[in-house]
Formats: sequence, C-alpha cells, structure tokens
Amino acid sequence: MVNWFWQRGASKRPELPRLRPRGVAESATKVDLHELTPDLQTFLGKAAYLQLMLFENLGTAIATAPTAASKEALSRVASLTLEKHHGLTAELVRHNAVPGDVMEQFAGTFDGYQAATTGRDWFENLVTCQVTAGFLDDFFLRLAPGLPDEARERVTAVLGANSGADILADQIRAEIEASPLLASRLAMWGRRLVGDTMLLARGTLAFSGRHDSDEARIEPVFTELIAAHTRRMDALGLTA
Amino acid sequence: MVNWFWQRGASKRPELPRLRPRGVAESATKVDLHELTPDLQTFLGKAAYLQLMLFENLGTAIATAPTAASKEALSRVASLTLEKHHGLTAELVRHNAVPGDVMEQFAGTFDGYQAATTGRDWFENLVTCQVTAGFLDDFFLRLAPGLPDEARERVTAVLGANSGADILADQIRAEIEASPLLASRLAMWGRRLVGDTMLLARGTLAFSGRHDSDEARIEPVFTELIAAHTRRMDALGLTA
Repeated sequence: MVNWFWQRGASKRPELPRLRPRGVAESATKVDLHELTPDLQTFLGKAAYLQLMLFENLGTAIATAPTAASKEALSRVASLTLEKHHGLTAELVRHNAVPGDVMEQFAGTFDGYQAATTGRDWFENLVTCQVTAGFLDDFFLRLAPGLPDEARERVTAVLGANSGADILADQIRAEIEASPLLASRLAMWGRRLVGDTMLLARGTLAFSGRHDSDEARIEPVFTELIAAHTRRMDALGLTA
Repeated sequence: MVNWFWQRGASKRPELPRLRPRGVAESATKVDLHELTPDLQTFLGKAAYLQLMLFENLGTAIATAPTAASKEALSRVASLTLEKHHGLTAELVRHNAVPGDVMEQFAGTFDGYQAATTGRDWFENLVTCQVTAGFLDDFFLRLAPGLPDEARERVTAVLGANSGADILADQIRAEIEASPLLASRLAMWGRRLVGDTMLLARGTLAFSGRHDSDEARIEPVFTELIAAHTRRMDALGLTA
C-alpha cells in the first residue's frame, strides 16, 4: 500500500485503496498505535476538542434537518457526543488541567478541519457526522493503549461508548433510498472527508523522528482504519 | 399597562414598560395560566420543539464562540437543554405519541421564530440563548399547572430544572466587562428578542374565544414574565 495519505503537500487526492473483496471477513486483530501516543494532556485535549467539533457538526446537521423527526433523532446522537466530550474533559480536570486552556492550543488546526468538513446541505452534513466520528473514535481508541495506567481504562470506556452511529446510518440509508441519485455525490463527499480526517489524525501522533520506523508503525494501523471506514460506507450503501 | 404585545400587526416596536423601581422586591405570588393551557400533546410537542430550538441556538453560539473555554462552558448549557428536550419527548412517548410527528406540526411557526432570533455574532447569539430560554422556561412553567394530573409533576420538574443560565450570564458579563460599548447593542437585541418571544408564547395559548376574559387572564402573567425578564437583563448589566 502506498503511503500517499501523509504527504501533506500532495495536490492530487488519490482514490482510496480497496483492501479486500467485499464481504470477506477481516482478521480480528486490532493493531494499535501505542508507541506514538502523545502525552496524556495532549491526548485528552485533542480528543475532547474533536468531540466538541463533532458535536458542532451535529448542531449544523440538526439545523439543516428537513423534519422534526430527524432533528429529534440527531439530538440523541448530539447527547452521546457531548457525553464523550464531558468524559474527556472530566479526565483533564482529574489531572489538574483546565480543559479550555488545554483545548485552546489545538483550536487553530482543528477549526480549519471543521470548516473543510462542513457540508453544503443536510445530506452532506449527515455523512460528515457519520464518517468523521467513526474514523476519529476508532483512531483515538487505538492510541489509548499508550496512555498511562491511571487513565487508560476510563478513557477507553469513554471513547468506546455508543456514539449513535446506528441512528445516523438509519437516517442516511433512508435518504439514499428516497433519492438514489444522492449516492454518488455522498460517496464523493465521503472520500474527501476521509482524506482530511486521516491528515488530521496523523497530525495528532507523537513521532519519534526516525522516519522509516514511524512509517512502519503507522502503515498497518491506517490500513485497518481505512478498512473499517470502508465497511461503514458499505453499510450505508456508499462506495468508499 | 397597555396590551400592545399581542397586536400581531403592530408595526412599531414599543419600549417595554418599566414595571417597578429597580431593587424593589416583587411579590412572591406567581400568577399562572392554567385556564389557557393547551391539551397535553400540544403542550409537550411545543415545549419539546422549543427546547430543541434553544439547543440549536446554543450550537450556533458554540460555533461562533471565540475560545475553547467558551465552547466548553456552553457545551454544559447545551447538555442541560437537551436533557429538558428529552424529558419532554419521553413524556410524549409515555402518552403513546411519536415526538417527531407531534413536533412537526409546529415546525413552520417555530422555525420562523428561530431565524428571527439568530444573532449576527457570538455576542448576540449568547444573549439569544439567555433571553429566550429564560422567558420560555418561565412561560411554560406557568402553563404547567393546567396539565392533567398524571403528567403535571414530571413536566414541572423537567421544565424547572437548571438550564445553565448562570453559565450564560457569566459569559455575557465577561464580554461586556471587556467591551463596555457592547452594552447598548445587546440591550437593543434583548428588546427585539423579548418582543418576538412574547408573540411566540402568546401563540401557544388555548384561547376561550371570549376576548375580554382571555385578555384579563393573560395580562397579569405577561406583566410578571416581563418583570422576570427585566431582572435577568439587570443581572447582566443590560437595560431591558
């Protein structure tokens, strides 16, 4: 697999690799990233700020939702996302940090990501919520094994909690069923999202500076992250 | 007191009456509106949809917040607002109604209100969250005594729960302290908000059709609602 996705300067957005034939079960092994986990405060600050951004995206989706029933359904997802955010900031407080101050350091980078992932309409906003939360929760869960003992379990429980993905998937499937032509536009949008999300994820890693060894560690993890993303897109009826 | 505020066609937006000299304690009596309370489903549907709109407004405020600390603080308020929304939809479900379907009936009217109360920037959005939630929670609490026995207590508990007003007030005061010139703009914005909010509130009442008797019932309640609004504005250092 080529490692195109961390060539920040790359102007071309290559197609995502198809990892294995659809429907073939993947190995249950989950490669983790623990050697590249940043210090606890950085990890928590970034993860907490990202949950807040996912929550803001849900707010945008709710505001653009066409029916009260859709708003209502997404408000459940927003609750779950806020719970994750508050679980992570509670952990910062437990370690004597001020969440706002810690998160502020990452605001510049992350706000750019958020602007890039805001969709043009309800359909794109829905897919943004699903794709970015799915990828980022998965990514941070793989970094969590590298956290200090006193926080690892709690943080893993927070990140691994239900994020309402089923609710979002139901909404997306219903929209595609009602307007099948949406599928190609949303598939394109999903590709853009996953590209931006991978760059953001890569930016949160604590590299050793030994280039070859860093890349060797990352490659299998991103391969699995993309496979999981592909399965989520498949479940929506969208090509990854 | 003139009853200007339910003359929907009025083109002039009159100044709010000053009810009593500042600092003079008001009577503890709370006039309620129980004779004009709509049926349970309408009450719950409207109250639930309004909490969802207050939540959307918080989303806008969070998205326009200048610092991660402000976002973090407002996310607490958003959580509390969603809890109220979900408490009210749970009550609808308890009475065998589908929340999305019930709320959908009010979407047209309420969405117009929301558009009218979206501010131009973070400062106005903050004041929107504070003023509209304060007035509407207060208003629905006064309608609640007219609900059927089997729902009254639970609904009152949901509506009376902490809505995070202190968090919002702290944010607004800090902004005004930092930029004292903001005070007149935000006072003007507050007047517009309370005018629109009173019209919306009036629209949720179940009138008997006997004009004089309806007006006689409403007048003292709105007088108290405005007094409470004036106290909240005072607490922010803003003229009502």
